[in-house]
Amino acid sequence: MLGLHGRKPAQVIVEPVAKLMIKLKVTPNQLTLVSAGLTVGVALLLIPTGHLIWAAVLTGLFAAFDMIDGTVARMQGGGTKFGATLDATCDRITDGALFGAITWWLVYSYDAPQALVAASLVCLVASQVISYVKARGEASGFTMDGGLVERPERLIVSLVGLGLTGMGVPYAIDVALWALAAGSIYTVVQRLVMAGKSPLAKEFTKAPAGAKADYSNTK
Amino acid sequence: MLGLHGRKPAQVIVEPVAKLMIKLKVTPNQLTLVSAGLTVGVALLLIPTGHLIWAAVLTGLFAAFDMIDGTVARMQGGGTKFGATLDATCDRITDGALFGAITWWLVYSYDAPQALVAASLVCLVASQVISYVKARGEASGFTMDGGLVERPERLIVSLVGLGLTGMGVPYAIDVALWALAAGSIYTVVQRLVMAGKSPLAKEFTKAPAGAKADYSNTK
Repeated sequence: MLGLHGRKPAQVIVEPVAKLMIKLKVTPNQLTLVSAGLTVGVALLLIPTGHLIWAAVLTGLFAAFDMIDGTVARMQGGGTKFGATLDATCDRITDGALFGAITWWLVYSYDAPQALVAASLVCLVASQVISYVKARGEASGFTMDGGLVERPERLIVSLVGLGLTGMGVPYAIDVALWALAAGSIYTVVQRLVMAGKSPLAKEFTKAPAGAKADYSNTK
Repeated sequence: MLGLHGRKPAQVIVEPVAKLMIKLKVTPNQLTLVSAGLTVGVALLLIPTGHLIWAAVLTGLFAAFDMIDGTVARMQGGGTKFGATLDATCDRITDGALFGAITWWLVYSYDAPQALVAASLVCLVASQVISYVKARGEASGFTMDGGLVERPERLIVSLVGLGLTGMGVPYAIDVALWALAAGSIYTVVQRLVMAGKSPLAKEFTKAPAGAKADYSNTK
């Protein structure tokens, strides 16, 4: 949802920073890698060590920073296909680091009930699968825009849950993870239904590399 | 690697079963969902409870069973684009369940050193990202075939590690996970390089839905 509607209001902040980056001759792909590296570093260092408020604030900041690379590219005529693939892949890596670190903290610091650890692992896997269905559907030519829980929602709910927990609000991370686990499973199904409803859904696809394609003489 | 070369030898077993499924009027998508459900069920039930040999054997069986849906589809004229998207998504879910269950078992049963738990989480995330880079690259029109650690290798190494551990072979799962973690990180980079070398890499891509595309009047 926010992926579709949240970018416009963010432009107020993002565009001036993008212009500065252009002046400093920083390329979009360099921005992608730096913001991903910072986000992963913050998640892996601050969450397992219990610095949850700082982790929430900095991860949120670097995730917002992640919008700048695309804006820089479009200000210079447009983003490249490789740049978009690199940016999307880095988003998957940072999502994995965030929920991996949260799972780690639940086990080794929060001494969480096993059910909550399971919910966190569901968030970790489902966050990857939600994005995978979109990419795999688009590789088949489907239009796969939108979904209940996309990356912006995922980051906001998890980081607010982390931050509130850091401030001592009881069960904040528990509620956040259960809500995300349920919402993420819903979104996986939502996107598969989206793919199934595509006008191209029933079109034939080529056999995967290495697979036998022609069975016309098979009885 | 095996994804490209392993399918041909497997046809000897897969094709007769596929013909049987056609006789029983089982559709490819039903096969996809059933084999995914069985694989997830086996992973989540047997691994956390320490039934590692059974988990390895049955997961391997159901994963091989997963080749049948595509063969049934091609025997009936060809697979559909939605069927391919559903099948690939179910592969991500079963990969997530497998490495989620292994991580769980490491923490709550094997009392693994934290570094090994970290390696298992790396396998979990990297296995998703390896497939994501391929799908995202193909959505941009790149050819993204092959890679050091694809799904067949991932399953074989992890299931052999599990099975040997179940037989009492010391450090079998440790070696398997460390090898997979290193090989999977290499494969993520390998596939990003593959995307970067694509002849379409530098082509412009459309702005993501909701993002401002035209900055031609921006100074």
